[in-house]
Amino acid sequence: MINYEIFNQNAIEEAHNRIRPYIHRTPILTSQAIDKIVGCKIHFKCENFQKVGAFKMRGASNAILQLDLSKVRNGVVTHSSGNHAQAVAKAAALVGVPAYIVMPENAPKVKIAAVKEYGGIITLCEATLQARETTSQKIVDEKKATFIHPYDNENIVIGQATAAKELIEEIPELESILCPVGGGGLLGGTILSSQFYNRNCKVYGTEPEGADDAHQSLKQKKLIPQTAPNTIADGLLTSLGKINYEIIKDGVADILLVNDDEIKAAMRLIWERMKIIIEPSCAVPLAALIRNKHMFQGQKVGVILSGGNVDLGKVAQYF
Amino acid sequence: MINYEIFNQNAIEEAHNRIRPYIHRTPILTSQAIDKIVGCKIHFKCENFQKVGAFKMRGASNAILQLDLSKVRNGVVTHSSGNHAQAVAKAAALVGVPAYIVMPENAPKVKIAAVKEYGGIITLCEATLQARETTSQKIVDEKKATFIHPYDNENIVIGQATAAKELIEEIPELESILCPVGGGGLLGGTILSSQFYNRNCKVYGTEPEGADDAHQSLKQKKLIPQTAPNTIADGLLTSLGKINYEIIKDGVADILLVNDDEIKAAMRLIWERMKIIIEPSCAVPLAALIRNKHMFQGQKVGVILSGGNVDLGKVAQYF
Repeated sequence: MINYEIFNQNAIEEAHNRIRPYIHRTPILTSQAIDKIVGCKIHFKCENFQKVGAFKMRGASNAILQLDLSKVRNGVVTHSSGNHAQAVAKAAALVGVPAYIVMPENAPKVKIAAVKEYGGIITLCEATLQARETTSQKIVDEKKATFIHPYDNENIVIGQATAAKELIEEIPELESILCPVGGGGLLGGTILSSQFYNRNCKVYGTEPEGADDAHQSLKQKKLIPQTAPNTIADGLLTSLGKINYEIIKDGVADILLVNDDEIKAAMRLIWERMKIIIEPSCAVPLAALIRNKHMFQGQKVGVILSGGNVDLGKVAQYF
Repeated sequence: MINYEIFNQNAIEEAHNRIRPYIHRTPILTSQAIDKIVGCKIHFKCENFQKVGAFKMRGASNAILQLDLSKVRNGVVTHSSGNHAQAVAKAAALVGVPAYIVMPENAPKVKIAAVKEYGGIITLCEATLQARETTSQKIVDEKKATFIHPYDNENIVIGQATAAKELIEEIPELESILCPVGGGGLLGGTILSSQFYNRNCKVYGTEPEGADDAHQSLKQKKLIPQTAPNTIADGLLTSLGKINYEIIKDGVADILLVNDDEIKAAMRLIWERMKIIIEPSCAVPLAALIRNKHMFQGQKVGVILSGGNVDLGKVAQYF
């Protein structure tokens, strides 16, 4: 059950007001060429142009701006393969506290470099959830710092909801919104915003077949953790969060799966036709639209383009 | 001497009205991160988002919309390594005449594919100016079709001028504008618009060292043709046009040179920081700003991002 005492319209309004000075109101783009291929009218909410290059700045700034600064002067700790890490580093810098960031050693170089640039203090660890969690806990203990969960945190989810809120404000007649699902903060937030701002709009999560824990969780009606994910969508490797699962199971229309070849083709389409850079995870919703064309014929569809942080040195693998 | 009987403010206004329904008014973007690196405030006019992915749609549509349709029903002919080819194919389709496009066999695949998609009838030829010209002439003779010069054509230059016109309308206080120079249509047009809409704004051409005929022509005070160009900036291989040379020698502040490593670095910066796709030729002005930082300190600078048509299959060579 969605806890409406925490997740209500007022909380999203307050979050939006709180973070507005620190985020971009990102543009919404369209592409006639892509519409023609898919057979519907797509409005792309370009969070790849967001501060730190991803929607994560919304949730991280909403969470960090609410901390009691007298209690977190020793800093904040989080673990993330990239975009949330950058967002926490940048948001912590806004309020002047140290940001300790645990990153898996296989995180894209460009994301590690960006975290450093925003002033984050990086600890690399093995690329497993367990290693990320134990390393984070060690820093919490040693530094007396405050842990910010990368997605299973109410204020993070409410912050991410502001992306869909802006999209619905500008295109109120959307019939469906699609976004990727990793930890589920963006999908959870998108469901909340559709419930409060456009009840008629269905929300679809879209997920790589190689990291399909959200799909499995919904099917089996219980939270299934992601083990051994295998996909080029490096931002979607984590397990669905508990809080997010509760929102998603009640509010999602469906979780649509795609494979890596479909992700690459959709990514190429957006790079070539829209001349904008998105990361593989960000191409998942368009890939799902292409696979499931029949479901969306003639509709007005919103797609949240989640981020644009790509390691250009490795870009040949995508094309 | 600039021929003000042809190149006057009224001609640019009329061209803009003529082509407005067929082009995008492209956005002007800024990047705090890049401003910090260069030490000035840059306004990027994003013609990579233009129809056909390049400013060339402005000139081609202005030229083709003025043709006497009763006389060109046999079609139009042009030669181009890519962006002008796409623009002529698309503009010819607007008025319903065949477009015969001569392209060098080493033209980027993505540009050849796009010309086909817009309905252009392609003839490949050797990658020399001579082969391009004789092949074009042959088609003109055989098909009784009308030749549209890719850049040395008054209506093309006046059409390209509308990009700088829009930039100056939105940012009237610009102190300098930089754009790339190949055939010189964009640079010529930009000089015209600065003369008519902001006389205080200096206009700089920017050119690869490996195709520096504009620089040489200005230095030697006569038109020097480009022979054996060698640069990754595949849109800037042609010789400066005669008409454009007359405008440029009177109106340009300087032609700034850059090498291919500087072009690659500037291209990477725009891809990574702005999350937009530009082609190598399009990175030349930013490369020139970075090399000549001292000249532009603290200024408000306009940069025309000329195009975004990159062969993604070959993108590894850039990074």
